[in-house]
Amino acid sequence: MHATFDALPQAVQAELPRAFLNWMGCVLGGCREPPVDLAAAAFLPLPPGKGRGEGLPASIIGRHQRADLATTALLNSFSASVLSFDDTHLATVTHPTGPVASAIFALSETRPVSGQDFATALAIGIEIECRLSNALLLPPAQANTGLYVTGLTGPIGAAAAMGRLLGLDERKMNWAIGLAAAQAAGFRATHGAMSGLLVPAFGARNAVHAALLAANGFTCPETLLEAPNGFIDIFSPAADPARATDALGHRFELLANAYKPYPAGIVIHPALDACLDLAARLPPGADPAAVTVTVHPLTLTLTDRRAPADPLEAQISLYHWVAASLLRRTAGIDELQQDCIDDPQIAALRTRINAISDPALNRDEAIAEMTLADGTTLRAHVPVARPMTDADLDRKFRAQATRVLDAAAADTLLRLCRDLPTLHDVGQQIAAVWKE
Amino acid sequence: MHATFDALPQAVQAELPRAFLNWMGCVLGGCREPPVDLAAAAFLPLPPGKGRGEGLPASIIGRHQRADLATTALLNSFSASVLSFDDTHLATVTHPTGPVASAIFALSETRPVSGQDFATALAIGIEIECRLSNALLLPPAQANTGLYVTGLTGPIGAAAAMGRLLGLDERKMNWAIGLAAAQAAGFRATHGAMSGLLVPAFGARNAVHAALLAANGFTCPETLLEAPNGFIDIFSPAADPARATDALGHRFELLANAYKPYPAGIVIHPALDACLDLAARLPPGADPAAVTVTVHPLTLTLTDRRAPADPLEAQISLYHWVAASLLRRTAGIDELQQDCIDDPQIAALRTRINAISDPALNRDEAIAEMTLADGTTLRAHVPVARPMTDADLDRKFRAQATRVLDAAAADTLLRLCRDLPTLHDVGQQIAAVWKE
Repeated sequence: MHATFDALPQAVQAELPRAFLNWMGCVLGGCREPPVDLAAAAFLPLPPGKGRGEGLPASIIGRHQRADLATTALLNSFSASVLSFDDTHLATVTHPTGPVASAIFALSETRPVSGQDFATALAIGIEIECRLSNALLLPPAQANTGLYVTGLTGPIGAAAAMGRLLGLDERKMNWAIGLAAAQAAGFRATHGAMSGLLVPAFGARNAVHAALLAANGFTCPETLLEAPNGFIDIFSPAADPARATDALGHRFELLANAYKPYPAGIVIHPALDACLDLAARLPPGADPAAVTVTVHPLTLTLTDRRAPADPLEAQISLYHWVAASLLRRTAGIDELQQDCIDDPQIAALRTRINAISDPALNRDEAIAEMTLADGTTLRAHVPVARPMTDADLDRKFRAQATRVLDAAAADTLLRLCRDLPTLHDVGQQIAAVWKE
Repeated sequence: MHATFDALPQAVQAELPRAFLNWMGCVLGGCREPPVDLAAAAFLPLPPGKGRGEGLPASIIGRHQRADLATTALLNSFSASVLSFDDTHLATVTHPTGPVASAIFALSETRPVSGQDFATALAIGIEIECRLSNALLLPPAQANTGLYVTGLTGPIGAAAAMGRLLGLDERKMNWAIGLAAAQAAGFRATHGAMSGLLVPAFGARNAVHAALLAANGFTCPETLLEAPNGFIDIFSPAADPARATDALGHRFELLANAYKPYPAGIVIHPALDACLDLAARLPPGADPAAVTVTVHPLTLTLTDRRAPADPLEAQISLYHWVAASLLRRTAGIDELQQDCIDDPQIAALRTRINAISDPALNRDEAIAEMTLADGTTLRAHVPVARPMTDADLDRKFRAQATRVLDAAAADTLLRLCRDLPTLHDVGQQIAAVWKE
């Protein structure tokens, strides 16, 4: 894939700064969360008390700490996913930008990378990642539904993006991809605790190492993805590798990537759209006696948690979000706090929700029905998820960024992200915002 | 498993220093190999020119360089496996000691760990690792034969060993095990290039991070190994998790662990024993016109490479080792050098070898038959691999250690490893050998 920025379709060119902005906002919004503190203490190479990594090449965004490229990529990627607010390739529930952007942003702090080159590498990484996810999960594949594909394909896309910026030749690019695939790991049982949120971050780190190894001349079989006993063979033996290259360069999976308005598992979003629609029509003080939500089967496979104990479980509990959105009539970070999870009224409603799995529905379709105490019934049908507009994304970014930056710095950063293709040195120009 | 050293059977107590000695020898023998140079350049946290990591807590053995615990564990584990001279749990082709010993040895440089505690942690790690490998691969499991289980179970055993030395309670131990399992990766298509040799090393690194994360309070579902969509479910859905705990504390898999006399893939060893037996009976100057080797099917699955291009492929080429051992009448590091691989006589003999896969054979059984140009036939049958005696292990260690240490230091280190259970501070006492 010898794409240049100019050769990308205009819609892709326009989407890349949106993906980058959404990533940067998620990093800033998540970087001071307690799980990131715990991870930083385990991963930073310098022992506590040995300074803030002054001699090291890249910056842990929002944390006033520097580290080597791989650790930086890991921690920035973890910040991006820790609140489950990162983007999602809907067909495969891949979260594509985190591993790719985190890896190449760390690299861009060590050498001049133009905005166009950065955006092109980002496009390549996301495209490879989502296309491999397609190959692993979509027909004819009969993959184990327990695969958390961001952990499997994220490092591969990110390694390819790194390889692009490092100027690897085809052979070394194949090594980089293979070395990333050799470390691929991701399964759904990691969800419901901090562990699941860390999976994309391992991919970011592993991609950096894979690309640096390949650049150094560290060898790997060149067909690791499709070889017998290789990546696809292990994780999805019935998959057709050709699915990954179908209409390559013509159809862009980046354009099938969605940004989240709610910090909830993406498969819950159609139900949330429907419930917020109902909530807006609910008379003040009305009591939802019974609620039925009908969702695509994957939604229940991934989020069938009726009594979440903490924010990590609540994030991926269909029942929690349905109950909280109906009673609070909104679905933001506040609805992920422990007081909302423990709210007796919300907890009680969670037990009265009837969730139905309907294979006839699309993945981004949901129906919510509610019977009030007086017998009134309300119904909302969301046939297609609502994409986030530029204004929605800007609003989301500001709310996240101002958790760690002042409003002026957040605005400066917003403009830099929006203007990504015009930057002459992505790492320097952007890192200057938090060096100021 | 609340084992103490005293409670371990005497045979296990006696085996632990042998496993440790063999690991240390392999680290020293491999640490200056070119792939380790390439890996060090990619993984060391400090950029080139930033010194030898003087402030960092652990030592890259034989390389006069220090790093954080995880990177140290990774590079020491890679040194141990880079020449494929590390130990092997024969039933599952797991290489158990590398990830475990590398992780806990790095930790032991940062705090006093007695030899008995170190040996007990090593026993726990190896036991968990090999037992999980049994569960993944042996009946009733119908696992993909492409799994390279050291990459899957190595990090889990090593994380448990780390957790033991960190004093983790049961809940945190389960987190550590889960966080290691969440990063498990290993498949056979990585073989035949440097990539395959690095797989155990990733496990050592990941185990360090998993244990440090858990110790910090970073959460993970507590039943990640056996949960739906969890570790066993993903890699070997038909496996019986109970197989991992069968006769736990009574039968020790460490006693089914073998040390290699040859730097070749372990499944080739029975054929090598048989060929060296034939070679010893071969008249001087005799030409093996035709050679037939009969091996367990797994041997051919893993080593069916008739024309290896380089040492990495030759290591796991049945044909190369059969040809080289018959013509050179030995099978050591010299037979892995490029000149031996390219030797026209050896290359020609490789093409005349008939390799037969026979499911009636045991895994450590092989038959070699040879017809000479004059029609004479010779036959050797190795029914069971020959275990290495203490003297064999000492000889192997000295040959490896003296690649980087002088003979006196190698002897000092040999005695320290042999006396492991008597040491009061493993890290300090052993690291003193290369600090001298």
